[in-house]
Amino acid sequence: MKPLETSTVGIVGLGLMGGAIALALRSEGIIGTTGRILAYDHNRDTLAAAQAEGIIDAGSYAAESMLGHCDLVFLCLTPTKLLRFMESQMAAFQPGTLITDIAGIKGSIVAAMERTLREDLDFIPGHPMAGSEMGGFIHARSCRFKGKNYILTPLKRNKPENLGFLKTLIYRMGFGRITETSAQEHDRNIAFTSQLCHVIAAALIDCEPDTEITRFGGGSFEDLTRIAMLNAPMWTELFIENQEELLQRIEQFAGSLDKLKSYIARGAGPELEQCLQTVRERRASMV
Amino acid sequence: MKPLETSTVGIVGLGLMGGAIALALRSEGIIGTTGRILAYDHNRDTLAAAQAEGIIDAGSYAAESMLGHCDLVFLCLTPTKLLRFMESQMAAFQPGTLITDIAGIKGSIVAAMERTLREDLDFIPGHPMAGSEMGGFIHARSCRFKGKNYILTPLKRNKPENLGFLKTLIYRMGFGRITETSAQEHDRNIAFTSQLCHVIAAALIDCEPDTEITRFGGGSFEDLTRIAMLNAPMWTELFIENQEELLQRIEQFAGSLDKLKSYIARGAGPELEQCLQTVRERRASMV
Repeated sequence: MKPLETSTVGIVGLGLMGGAIALALRSEGIIGTTGRILAYDHNRDTLAAAQAEGIIDAGSYAAESMLGHCDLVFLCLTPTKLLRFMESQMAAFQPGTLITDIAGIKGSIVAAMERTLREDLDFIPGHPMAGSEMGGFIHARSCRFKGKNYILTPLKRNKPENLGFLKTLIYRMGFGRITETSAQEHDRNIAFTSQLCHVIAAALIDCEPDTEITRFGGGSFEDLTRIAMLNAPMWTELFIENQEELLQRIEQFAGSLDKLKSYIARGAGPELEQCLQTVRERRASMV
Repeated sequence: MKPLETSTVGIVGLGLMGGAIALALRSEGIIGTTGRILAYDHNRDTLAAAQAEGIIDAGSYAAESMLGHCDLVFLCLTPTKLLRFMESQMAAFQPGTLITDIAGIKGSIVAAMERTLREDLDFIPGHPMAGSEMGGFIHARSCRFKGKNYILTPLKRNKPENLGFLKTLIYRMGFGRITETSAQEHDRNIAFTSQLCHVIAAALIDCEPDTEITRFGGGSFEDLTRIAMLNAPMWTELFIENQEELLQRIEQFAGSLDKLKSYIARGAGPELEQCLQTVRERRASMV
C-alpha cells in the first residue's frame, strides 16, 4: 500500500456511515492534500453536496469510473447490495486494491468473498459499531467514532500488512477498540448486543399504541426505544440474514424475562432482589 | 401557605432524590435567605456533608424535632419506609403542613393516606420522573430536573391552593411537564415506561454471563442496560408492590416480542418491514 496520506480512498454508498467515514478521513487529516477521497452513490444530490462541502474530492455516478483509481475502498452498503455490487463490479477494481465493508452481518459476506473474490484483491470484512437511528448522509455528522468499537473478521488470505494498514486507519478515525474475530463469532455476538436490542426496542413500541405514554417517561423508556427509529428495510435484512443466531438470542432473553416475571408473580422478594443485585454488579463490571 | 421564599422545607431521606430536590431549591434560589431547608436522614455523615456544602440549613437525626418547623415536607423514601414513617410520625407535623412524596408507586400510598392522614394535613402524592441509576446523596448532582416529567396523583381532599403552590414549586425546580392523574393510572403507566424497562434491562444482563460482550457493543446494548445498575432493594419493592400492573405489561411486551420472533423465524420480510416501519413512525411521533 501507498502511505495513507497519499492514498485514494473510494467510498461506495454515501449514506450515514459512508458519509461519516469520509468526514473522519477528511477532518482528522488522515487523507492529506496529495491523497483523494472519492465517492460513488446513486443519489447525485448527495454527491454534489458532499463535494461542495469539501468532504469528498469527487463524486461518481458510475462505480467503474471510480474503482479504477482507488487504493482502498469502503463498501458502505447493506449486505444484499454489497454482494450484488461485488458481483457486478469485481472486474473494475485496480489490481491489489484493499477493500473493506461496514455491514452488520459477516457470515454470508465472508462466505461469498472466500468463494468469489479476485485473487489479487484483498477484502477485509469490518463492522464499525457506531451507527445511529438517524439514517442517510444528512446525518453523517451525528455519527461519533471516538472511543467506539470496531470489529474485523479477517479472511485467511488477508495480507498482514493490509490488516495493519486498515487497523491504523481505524484508530486514526477515532475508534477506541478493534476486536478481531471470526464471522461466526461476530454474528453470534452482534445478534445479542445489536439485533436483539433493536428487536426489544421495536417490541416495546409495537405493544403500546398510546404515544402520549411519554408523559410518564423518566428517561428509561426513551433510552430503550430511541433505536426503534430504525431503518426498517436495513434491519429487516439484518434480522432475517442472521435469523438463526438472532432467534437463539431472543429465546435466551425471553428465558430471563420469564424468570423475573415468575419472581414477581410469586412475590419472591429475596430471590428477585438477589437476582437484581447480581445483575447490577455484572453490568457495573462491564467496560 | 407562606410565600415560597420564606417557607421552611423539610426533606425526609437525603438520598439521590431528596438531595437533588434540596439542591434545586437552593440553587434555583427558590428558598430565599428568609426560608430554610431542613433534612432528616439516618446517616449523620450525609447530613453533615449537606450542611457543610450549604445545601441544607440544618440536618436532624430525629424526625420529630424537624417536622414541627416545616411548612412543606418532601418524603423521599421508598413506599414501605414512607408508610412506616407516616404511621410513626403523624403526630409530629405542624398543623396545616403540606406534605408530598416521590415514591415510584402511588396506589398503596394514596389508599393509606385516604384512610389515615390527619384531618389538618394536606398530602399531595407525587412522582418526579428524574431518577438515575446512581443512588445516594453523593450522586444527587447527577439528577437533572430540567424539562423532565412530574406526575401528581392528588387526593380528593387536597386544597386547590396547596396544589397550585406545589405545581409552581415543581416548575421552578426545572421540571418541564406536570401530569395530574389517578394513582391507578399512574401505576398502570409507570409499570410500562419505568418498571417494564427495568425488568427488560435486568433480563438482558441476566441472560448473558460474558461481560466481555461489550467489545461488540455499539451503543444500543449500553443504552438499554444502563438502568440495570439499579438499586436492587428499592426496585424489588416497586416491582412486587405493583405486581398486577407490571405482570400485565410484561405480557403485553412479550406478545409483541413473540410476534417479531415469528416474523423472523418465518423469514416474513414484508410483514417484518411493515411492522418496523410502523414502529419507527410511532416512536418518531412521541414527544
